[in-house]
Amino acid sequence: MIPKDHPRYASLVRREKIAEAAWERIVAMEGVGSHGRGEAFDYLIGEKTTESAYLAEKTAAAFLLNAGCAVISVNGNTAALAAELIADLQTATGALVEVNLFHRTEERIQKITKLLEDNGVVVLKGDAERLLPLSHDRALCIREGIYSSDVVIVPLEDGDRCQALVNMGKTVITIDLNPLSRTAQTADLTIVDELTRAIANITSEAKLMDKNQGNKLIKNLDNKKLLKSAIQSIMENLSDAMDRKTQA
Amino acid sequence: MIPKDHPRYASLVRREKIAEAAWERIVAMEGVGSHGRGEAFDYLIGEKTTESAYLAEKTAAAFLLNAGCAVISVNGNTAALAAELIADLQTATGALVEVNLFHRTEERIQKITKLLEDNGVVVLKGDAERLLPLSHDRALCIREGIYSSDVVIVPLEDGDRCQALVNMGKTVITIDLNPLSRTAQTADLTIVDELTRAIANITSEAKLMDKNQGNKLIKNLDNKKLLKSAIQSIMENLSDAMDRKTQA
Repeated sequence: MIPKDHPRYASLVRREKIAEAAWERIVAMEGVGSHGRGEAFDYLIGEKTTESAYLAEKTAAAFLLNAGCAVISVNGNTAALAAELIADLQTATGALVEVNLFHRTEERIQKITKLLEDNGVVVLKGDAERLLPLSHDRALCIREGIYSSDVVIVPLEDGDRCQALVNMGKTVITIDLNPLSRTAQTADLTIVDELTRAIANITSEAKLMDKNQGNKLIKNLDNKKLLKSAIQSIMENLSDAMDRKTQA
Repeated sequence: MIPKDHPRYASLVRREKIAEAAWERIVAMEGVGSHGRGEAFDYLIGEKTTESAYLAEKTAAAFLLNAGCAVISVNGNTAALAAELIADLQTATGALVEVNLFHRTEERIQKITKLLEDNGVVVLKGDAERLLPLSHDRALCIREGIYSSDVVIVPLEDGDRCQALVNMGKTVITIDLNPLSRTAQTADLTIVDELTRAIANITSEAKLMDKNQGNKLIKNLDNKKLLKSAIQSIMENLSDAMDRKTQA
């Protein structure tokens, strides 16, 4: 049991959830490592939502509300960490939810679908077809879902898939704690924040947003600036820590 | 199969080794996440041995050669990534090798011992006793090994254990890619480098080192300076990446 007053309680609870979900085969073993990489970047970013990440989250809410067909793409890590939060985001935005896995097996699709449904998510069903310009099973998605979307949010996504979706002309939003990753660099809108904080913020902003505010956020999107600001936050934190921790 | 010409081949091979070792229960599930955190920091450090890390590695060789009783403490991740390299380090320095686990089970001790022995390591055997000033099983070690050592190298170690060993008056060397971690901050000598690169370098330096050179390295050790230099390397890499990747 992690004591509730531990300074890094939330992070340690997420770590435990990922480990449990790995034993249940909801999270792929590769996903446990990815979560660790994310943890390291979250540590560097200060384990809080920065101002620029919050702006990105508000902008994401605007895109989801403005879309003709918005889809939330959910993988194992996202489901393990945020099933309930995905249900809230779906209610607030009306987006479709599609399960879409990098390490795809029918067993994992079913387990993740059940986990999401148990938490109140309406999961899009249908035959997955090879519709993305990628080789092998990574091309699979549902025709009425990701394939037809104009806005898709792909948290914790692989770089190739992110690129493929951008190439298809979709507006691609990602949540990725590494501002230098290929996914972060490729997406149209990159939220450099921890997944559960990000999704909760998008949902609460979506509930409040009016059309004019949304249009303005979309018009003013400057993803390079958002990424630069995230890197600067990390550098400032490192510089502070260096001063604090390495005084002779 | 990872293609050999992939720019991050070595890192991806290590990731695979860790995942396989987790299924075999050599690496704890928590260790898979830790490996991911290390990967993130290695990425930030440029996936190469920095000049200051090399100085730390040379200094580690000096301490191991100069010790009355030197011990290499090996956990699941270390065994999975570097069993063969540990054998070389043992040959070059004459150090004892003790298996010492954070998530300790008899089954894991035996599997890790076998993996090390299969790779030519002579593993110290004996009854583990509660000899470290820590609660529960984390206090366990062998009387003739870590408990009696004057120099101990604890790669990828937990902060509490590192602190306990320092409190016992031992010279504690760690290998940790996060220069801000409690372990990195607590050890007497911190090598901020990836495990396999670090161990290979310590070994090759140990083979070449003469007594005078060793004494000089030990005398000149300034761990705060080593840590500061590691943080500066990360900041320089981030700054370069920012300039390269976020030009408008």
